[in-house]
Amino acid sequence: MPKISQARREERQQQILAGARRCFAEHGYEGATVVRLEEAIGLSRGAIFNYFPSKEDLFLELAVRDSRRMSDIWINEGLEAIVREVVELDPAWLAVYLELFRRVRTDPEFCRRIEERQKAVAPANRERIEEAQREGEFRDDIGPKEIGTFVNLVLNGLALMRAGGEELPSTDLVLTLLRDAIGPDRARTPARTPA
Amino acid sequence: MPKISQARREERQQQILAGARRCFAEHGYEGATVVRLEEAIGLSRGAIFNYFPSKEDLFLELAVRDSRRMSDIWINEGLEAIVREVVELDPAWLAVYLELFRRVRTDPEFCRRIEERQKAVAPANRERIEEAQREGEFRDDIGPKEIGTFVNLVLNGLALMRAGGEELPSTDLVLTLLRDAIGPDRARTPARTPA
Repeated sequence: MPKISQARREERQQQILAGARRCFAEHGYEGATVVRLEEAIGLSRGAIFNYFPSKEDLFLELAVRDSRRMSDIWINEGLEAIVREVVELDPAWLAVYLELFRRVRTDPEFCRRIEERQKAVAPANRERIEEAQREGEFRDDIGPKEIGTFVNLVLNGLALMRAGGEELPSTDLVLTLLRDAIGPDRARTPARTPA
Repeated sequence: MPKISQARREERQQQILAGARRCFAEHGYEGATVVRLEEAIGLSRGAIFNYFPSKEDLFLELAVRDSRRMSDIWINEGLEAIVREVVELDPAWLAVYLELFRRVRTDPEFCRRIEERQKAVAPANRERIEEAQREGEFRDDIGPKEIGTFVNLVLNGLALMRAGGEELPSTDLVLTLLRDAIGPDRARTPARTPA
């Protein structure tokens, strides 16, 4: 009995999170009212808030799952996979994150909750970079933290351009230039013959 | 007489834009009500909307002035100057841009107005990059448009991290890696002795 109940609980959680994500993407964070969340999820507010006590908790759970997934891709599949992932993110969902930047800055408690949840994924990323440095995939004349921050910077830039519907550079170009920046020191293969 | 009146007009415009910027940064775009704009600017809504017919026009004018200023820095002072500029941008003001990404995606008329205003600054940027390629500052095995998009990508990433209060990589590191990516092909100077 407890096993079935646990499986059901998780299924229900999945249903709630999937619906909440659609609702946030469609209406924005502020626009995702309780009535709209109920509609998108197909459950009453009582049932929803039994799993997630507030809209904020719903968003934070979605955000931490995103972080974990991105971190897993980076660790298990490498640089190319994570770049390809970011350029395919849903712009409507990305805009929800952007909408909340002001809140991160002005609401210390919200900021603390976000940071606490992100912290869990950082150490594994660092180990992955150190390994890539040992294997000669990344340069080793700068620290793993610096490399990680620069990759993060490029991924942030891609996500922001994607959210704004701007024309993205081709993924191959991003990978070429990113590797020229953080790859090992070696003669560069020209991207094409000089114009 | 007309000259004095023109000078006054510009002074008044400056006053309105400076107040509106402070107000948007403090309260967010949605939170910047007409009453708050009046207070921050020190003029009545009648006087304000005599110069800018709507809150949207106020924001668009601020945005296009930002774009022009950034473009001028990049063209006249180069890569290092523009990177240093972006890492010092006001996070509260950046958050206003982020808040409006959803609107850019969902409101075609707003999107059109923004794009129209940004278009004016693009050609000069391209000429600046071509010049840097001829002078050997940037690699010439990829096109000027690609280089411009990659620089834009890195600047977007910096702005987003700055807006979120994330720890930025040092400006020197960003410049080193960015130059390794888009600079001419040459043996790299190690950033420090290997760890």
